[in-house]
Amino acid sequence: MRAAVVTNSKFEVTDLPAPIPGRGQVLINVSRCGICGSDLHVRNHADEVAELSAVTGYDSFMRSDQSVVLGHEFSGEVVDYGPGCRKRWRAGTPVVALPIVRHGDKPQLTGLSVEAPGAYAEQVIVQESMTMPVPNGLSAEHAALTEPMAVAWHAVRRGRIGKRQQAFVIGCGPIGLAVISMLKAAGVRTVVASDFSPRRRELAAACGADIVVDPATDSPWTAAPTRGRINGVTDILDLGFDTMDRLRRVPNLPWWYVFRLAHTLNAGPSGPVIFECVGVPGILDQIITAAPPLSRVVVVGVCMEADRIRPAMAINKELDLRFAFGYDPGEFRDTLHLLAEGKVDPAPLITGTVGLNGIDAAFTTLATPDHHAKILIDPTSNAPTP
Amino acid sequence: MRAAVVTNSKFEVTDLPAPIPGRGQVLINVSRCGICGSDLHVRNHADEVAELSAVTGYDSFMRSDQSVVLGHEFSGEVVDYGPGCRKRWRAGTPVVALPIVRHGDKPQLTGLSVEAPGAYAEQVIVQESMTMPVPNGLSAEHAALTEPMAVAWHAVRRGRIGKRQQAFVIGCGPIGLAVISMLKAAGVRTVVASDFSPRRRELAAACGADIVVDPATDSPWTAAPTRGRINGVTDILDLGFDTMDRLRRVPNLPWWYVFRLAHTLNAGPSGPVIFECVGVPGILDQIITAAPPLSRVVVVGVCMEADRIRPAMAINKELDLRFAFGYDPGEFRDTLHLLAEGKVDPAPLITGTVGLNGIDAAFTTLATPDHHAKILIDPTSNAPTP
Repeated sequence: MRAAVVTNSKFEVTDLPAPIPGRGQVLINVSRCGICGSDLHVRNHADEVAELSAVTGYDSFMRSDQSVVLGHEFSGEVVDYGPGCRKRWRAGTPVVALPIVRHGDKPQLTGLSVEAPGAYAEQVIVQESMTMPVPNGLSAEHAALTEPMAVAWHAVRRGRIGKRQQAFVIGCGPIGLAVISMLKAAGVRTVVASDFSPRRRELAAACGADIVVDPATDSPWTAAPTRGRINGVTDILDLGFDTMDRLRRVPNLPWWYVFRLAHTLNAGPSGPVIFECVGVPGILDQIITAAPPLSRVVVVGVCMEADRIRPAMAINKELDLRFAFGYDPGEFRDTLHLLAEGKVDPAPLITGTVGLNGIDAAFTTLATPDHHAKILIDPTSNAPTP
Repeated sequence: MRAAVVTNSKFEVTDLPAPIPGRGQVLINVSRCGICGSDLHVRNHADEVAELSAVTGYDSFMRSDQSVVLGHEFSGEVVDYGPGCRKRWRAGTPVVALPIVRHGDKPQLTGLSVEAPGAYAEQVIVQESMTMPVPNGLSAEHAALTEPMAVAWHAVRRGRIGKRQQAFVIGCGPIGLAVISMLKAAGVRTVVASDFSPRRRELAAACGADIVVDPATDSPWTAAPTRGRINGVTDILDLGFDTMDRLRRVPNLPWWYVFRLAHTLNAGPSGPVIFECVGVPGILDQIITAAPPLSRVVVVGVCMEADRIRPAMAINKELDLRFAFGYDPGEFRDTLHLLAEGKVDPAPLITGTVGLNGIDAAFTTLATPDHHAKILIDPTSNAPTP
C-alpha cells in the first residue's frame, strides 16, 4: 500500500507491505485523514515529546530518526479482521476508531509511534474494541473530524460551562474553532473568540462565535456585556457594606442571615470560562493577568516548553486552571453522534484536501494561520496542494 | 492607647491617640491578635505586595516607609459605637470581625493599610456590619483563630473534596495545619501531611493528620493505600482493552453501552485533592510533576514571585490548579461556629503568647519552622518572648 513516511522531518511517499491485523484488530481502508497540529509539532520535535511522554508513562512515542506513518484523525471502511474479533461490521462499512491499538499488554498511539503506523496511508489497523460504525450517512470527510472535535468536546465538558456563562476562546486555530463549534452545540449563549489572523476570525464567525475580536485592536474581555454579579472578594465586601448594613436594619431578620446571604451569592454563578487554545509560552500569564476574577481557564493549547506564571495574580482573582487532554471513548462516541445528527457542523473547519503527495505542501501552508484550518488527506487523490 | 507600630521593618511600641469609630463602626478592646505569615512577609516586602495589590484593584496597601499598626486576626470586646450603628451588642460583649473597614466608598484592609490600623494594639476599629458576637463561651484565644481558620475553610470548600477522596497537605505551617484541622472537621477520611520540619510534623499529627510524612525520606504520594480506580487517559484505554472486549462479547449488550460505561467510569470519583501550603517558587512545578493523574491542586500558599511550571506535564495528567484567596463572610461565620461548637479544635496551632513588647522576638522565632506555629499577642501582657 502507498503511505507517506516521515524520517528526520522529511516526508516520502512509498510502498509499504499490506498491514496484517493482529488479535482483536481490524484492517480498514482509509477514506480521509486530517492533519493535526500535533503532527506539525512532532515532525520537527518528536524527541522532546517522546521524553515528556516517557516521564508520564508512555515510552513508545516516535523518535525523529525513526520512519513513521503519521495520522490519527481518520475515517475509513472495514476490509478484514484479525483473529479473535466479533466481526460485527461487514466489509465496506464506514467506521471511525480511537487512534490506539494494543500490542501485547501495552497500548500504542496510532500515528504517533513506529509500533502503530497511522492513516497517512491507504490502509490502517485499528482495535475492534475502539471502533464504531459511522451512523446516519455521515460523510467520510465529516466523520474524519470526530477525533479533533472530541478533543474540543472534552475541553467543553472539562470547563463545566453553563449556558448563561460567558465563554472566551483565545486562539482560533483548528482546536479553537472546534471548541467554538462545540460550545454553540452545547447551547452556550455568548461565545467571544479572539485571534490576530483575519482568516481565522472569519472562520470563527463561520463556526458560530457570537463576538469575534482582533486582540491587536480590541480587548476580548470587554467585548461582551457583563451582567451585574459578585466578582470576587472585594465585590463581596462591597456587597457587605452596601447590602449588609441595609439588610441588618430589616426587623426580625436574624443577623446571621445576612452573612448566609453573602455566602449564597458567592456560591452562585461564577465567572466566565476561558478556553486557552494557543499553547505558546507566555499566553497563560497573559490570560491570568487579563482574565476577570473567578474565571475558569481550560488549557487546551499544548505548550511544550516551560512557562512562567505569577501565582499571586491567580490567587488574588481566585482563578481555576483546568488542564485538558484527549477524551474518553464515550466522548468520542458522543462527538460522532453530534456530527451525524447535525447538531454540530464541521464544514467551516475543512479548508482543503490533498493526496499523499501533497502532505509536504499542506504542512508548509498550515505553518501560517492565514489560509487553512483543517486539511484532509484523501489517499486516493493526487492533488499536490490543498 | 499602646500599639506596636512598624516603620521600615522596625517595630516600636508607642502610645497612639485613642481611635474614634466612624459611621457604622465599632471600637473594640483587643483581647488577642494572631501573628500571620503575611505579617512576616509585609514587614520586609510591603512595597512589592502593594504593587501587586494595585494591579488587582486595591491601591491603599501599606508601604514600607509608612508607620502601620499590623494585625488582622483578632478577638475583642465591644467598647463604643460610631454614628449610624444598630448598637446591638452591649459594652463588653466578646466579638470577632472581618478585617475590613469602610472609608468613604472604599474598603480598607485592617492591619494592612495605614488607613485602617490593626490589632497589634490595645484597641481596634471594626465595621459593625462585619462584626459578630462570639457564641457559646468560646475563649478569646480560640476566637482569634477565626480568621486564619476561615482561610483554611475556604480552601477546603474550594477543593470540593469528598469524604472518601484522599487529601494531601504539602507544607504544615499555620495555614497547612489549619487546613488539616478543617479537612478532618469536614469528615475527610484520609489526610496525608508532609513537611521537612519534625516540629511541624508533630503539630500536623496533633491537628488530626492520618499519615504524616517527612518528604526528605518518604514520598507523601505513596504513603496512603490507593483504591483501584480509573487514573487518567491511559488507564481508561487499558480499561477499554481489558473490559470493553469482554463486555462486547456479552449477548444483547448494545455496542455503544460499552463506551457509555467507560464514559461513566471516567466521570466517577476523581483523583486526590492536594493543598499547596508552602508558597515558594518551584513548589507548584514539583507538585505538578509528582501529583497523581486527575489531581485537584488547591493553591493556598502565596508565592509572591514569578514561578516556572511545565504546562505539558499538567496537561498529560489533566490536573486542576485552583487558586484560593481569603473567604467570604458566610465562611467566616461558619468557621466561628465550627470553633464554638467544638467541631474543630485550634488548640494545637497556638504555641505561644507575647505582649506588644514581644512582637519582634516572636517574628524572629516564627522565621524558622522549628518552634512555633501560631503566636498570639495579648496587649495586656508584658511577656517579652513567646
